[in-house]
Amino acid sequence: MTNLSKAFGIAVRRRREALHVSQEELADQTGLHRTYISLIERGLRNASVETTIKLAKALNTTGSQLLEEVERGINDGPE
Amino acid sequence: MTNLSKAFGIAVRRRREALHVSQEELADQTGLHRTYISLIERGLRNASVETTIKLAKALNTTGSQLLEEVERGINDGPE
Repeated sequence: MTNLSKAFGIAVRRRREALHVSQEELADQTGLHRTYISLIERGLRNASVETTIKLAKALNTTGSQLLEEVERGINDGPE
Repeated sequence: MTNLSKAFGIAVRRRREALHVSQEELADQTGLHRTYISLIERGLRNASVETTIKLAKALNTTGSQLLEEVERGINDGPE
């Protein structure tokens, strides 16, 4: 598990919860498996750019904005 | 090959060439294989977020800015 995957997972979960969307709903909207979303949110998978953009769209944002949040998370150092 | 991978490859190549950096040099800087960089630039691989950030750093940008360019490329439609 890298800091990057961790920061990515945190950003996805934060946005999903802010929208009151469940992992199941996010899975339906993206066509990804719920288990895979759970692994991503826990930083156990390194998402592809394609997955990033799918998730971002379903979370009312862009891949670019999501990555900005991730890169900010990494630069702020470990929690 | 998706439009996304294609747009991603175009953005990487455009930035690399603007910096007058060869695929070999980019490979050295990122620790990725030159062949893999070539596949990415031709849109034949779907890069991970981790690879995106590595490439972005070596290209004097951020993953977020690189994705912004990619998403702009997709939204502008097919060439």
